[in-house]
Amino acid sequence: MPLESGEKLGPITLAYETYGTLNKQKTNAILVLHALSGDAHAAGAGGWWDSLIGPGKGLDTNKYLVICSNVIGGCKGSTGPSSTNPKTGKPYGADFPIITIGDIVNAQKQLVDHLGIEKLLAVIGGSMGGMQVLQWMVSYPEKIRSAIPIATTMKHTPQQIAFNEVGRQAIMADPNWKRGNYYDSAIPAKGLAVARMIGHITYMSDVSMAEKFGRKFREDKEPFKFGAEFEVEGYLRYRGDNFVKRFDANSYLYITKAIDYFNILNGKSLSSIFKGLKAKVLVIAFKSDWLYPAYQSQEIVRACKLAGVDASYCEIDSTYGHDAFLLEVEEETHLLKHFLNTVSNGHNGGAP
Amino acid sequence: MPLESGEKLGPITLAYETYGTLNKQKTNAILVLHALSGDAHAAGAGGWWDSLIGPGKGLDTNKYLVICSNVIGGCKGSTGPSSTNPKTGKPYGADFPIITIGDIVNAQKQLVDHLGIEKLLAVIGGSMGGMQVLQWMVSYPEKIRSAIPIATTMKHTPQQIAFNEVGRQAIMADPNWKRGNYYDSAIPAKGLAVARMIGHITYMSDVSMAEKFGRKFREDKEPFKFGAEFEVEGYLRYRGDNFVKRFDANSYLYITKAIDYFNILNGKSLSSIFKGLKAKVLVIAFKSDWLYPAYQSQEIVRACKLAGVDASYCEIDSTYGHDAFLLEVEEETHLLKHFLNTVSNGHNGGAP
Repeated sequence: MPLESGEKLGPITLAYETYGTLNKQKTNAILVLHALSGDAHAAGAGGWWDSLIGPGKGLDTNKYLVICSNVIGGCKGSTGPSSTNPKTGKPYGADFPIITIGDIVNAQKQLVDHLGIEKLLAVIGGSMGGMQVLQWMVSYPEKIRSAIPIATTMKHTPQQIAFNEVGRQAIMADPNWKRGNYYDSAIPAKGLAVARMIGHITYMSDVSMAEKFGRKFREDKEPFKFGAEFEVEGYLRYRGDNFVKRFDANSYLYITKAIDYFNILNGKSLSSIFKGLKAKVLVIAFKSDWLYPAYQSQEIVRACKLAGVDASYCEIDSTYGHDAFLLEVEEETHLLKHFLNTVSNGHNGGAP
Repeated sequence: MPLESGEKLGPITLAYETYGTLNKQKTNAILVLHALSGDAHAAGAGGWWDSLIGPGKGLDTNKYLVICSNVIGGCKGSTGPSSTNPKTGKPYGADFPIITIGDIVNAQKQLVDHLGIEKLLAVIGGSMGGMQVLQWMVSYPEKIRSAIPIATTMKHTPQQIAFNEVGRQAIMADPNWKRGNYYDSAIPAKGLAVARMIGHITYMSDVSMAEKFGRKFREDKEPFKFGAEFEVEGYLRYRGDNFVKRFDANSYLYITKAIDYFNILNGKSLSSIFKGLKAKVLVIAFKSDWLYPAYQSQEIVRACKLAGVDASYCEIDSTYGHDAFLLEVEEETHLLKHFLNTVSNGHNGGAP
């Protein structure tokens, strides 16, 4: 598979799961796109979006076939830096090529072709998943009947890059990282945990943290004076340590880089970027999301409108911060059901 | 010196500088209180607030004596974890006791007494400096004629604690930290640099970062693919590496802990906390400061008003984020000159 950087990657494996059944006309497939730390296991026990995918749910598996694949560069079954490099017989490590959101979507396109689906009913995702939605809108406009970018942006801002960069610095500062060659030794657990803690702060809001933790001290306050004393400290350490068990540090580096490179405009004008797109678009943002603030979603809507694309916008009044896209189930369920009904009832895109 | 924790610290050294001349009546002294990484060198070449302190400036040294001391726990001349522990003859390291903003202010009180000043014309500071101002208002209300807390809060919120905690985790994850005993070996430079980078993101705003860096690539883009490519990455690394040369990692741990413990209310009601305070108060906040958002300054004003304290509030429309308290020189100069004139012209506090 040729990459946007000019390098090649292959052969590639793409791990994916499906829920529901493809209809005879193959017109009811929805592609779900995961965020930074997600994977193909979107629904069922432990699925990261199980609240929204299933019989009768927002993405109703009685009606639709829902597909979710792990991104390339990941560590949950798809080809990534922890996969074996066929040239050496060892894990790629830092020899893995730089990948982009464009590359991630190109790999998904091959999966969709492989499944014999000519046109997806919808592509949907939040955060980095939303970037993939935007990429589908630009790279394969003729392959989608609708698109639902959630809590995302058309280009990563310096503040967003900065948070990712500090996480990467924390990983690379860990002596166990060894320029990515740690697969036969101790992993850079502390660095990766710090990176994840930074992430978690940005996923919540000032208000949601105040509601969840306040200034409460932990019941089992540790004796050492730089131990976790406040509830919020214990929570961050727990989330950091847990993440290390399920995620690869090199994947964290590569995927955050792909996010930072993301700039769907890339020199094009706001009015031209979605020109000719026939898909219906639903843009969702959350008021308390300060990592991907609502103004960035509004810019997506503006770009759609300037190009004559049939786009609607919903800003949900949530206090959950960026995490809201995983948590505001009730409101998202209503929005998705209504929108997907409109799309699947034959309104095949185009401005009204 | 007895500490709030119950432990004792001593003998203590307090490094301080003064600018201007104390008048005969000793009524023109202003105590400037520094933020997390500040020191006693507030004015003159390289002074952290030189733009506001000097002849004719906001804190006019032709009129006032300006005093600034390094906080205890610091590493710029005052007793801190890198100072020699008289019990062992070696640096304190992690044997340094936990300190609080109250302890920091108690030490300053001794300095003010030592200088023979019965009543300060003003106490002023931003960020952690502002916390010390609030502490003066509560601990020594009779010693101050006015108080100017800037870009600060009455209690550290879980989001603010979380950012500090991740910085501490980065330092403690550095194998060179060795539980604080690194003074005869390599310092935890990488961990401290990461901590500082996190800080710098919170000191700026989404807008100021976009204006300063955009998505520009560095001209001397590094060849290794996880090198600093974006301007913002280069800036953060530069600031992180620079900080390591001038700041002690253990001081960073102790001072951020003092900040996190800060809760001036500590169980008291908003209406009682400033009861009986005769000092005039000027509260300053900045619209784009998301680390210490304006609502937290408004709460200080509310507490003053509930207690009948003569308080005024100014929210400056700046895009600089939290750093604005160091950068919005022109507007701060006007505010300070006018306010200090009113205070020193005999309006000796009290509700209007």
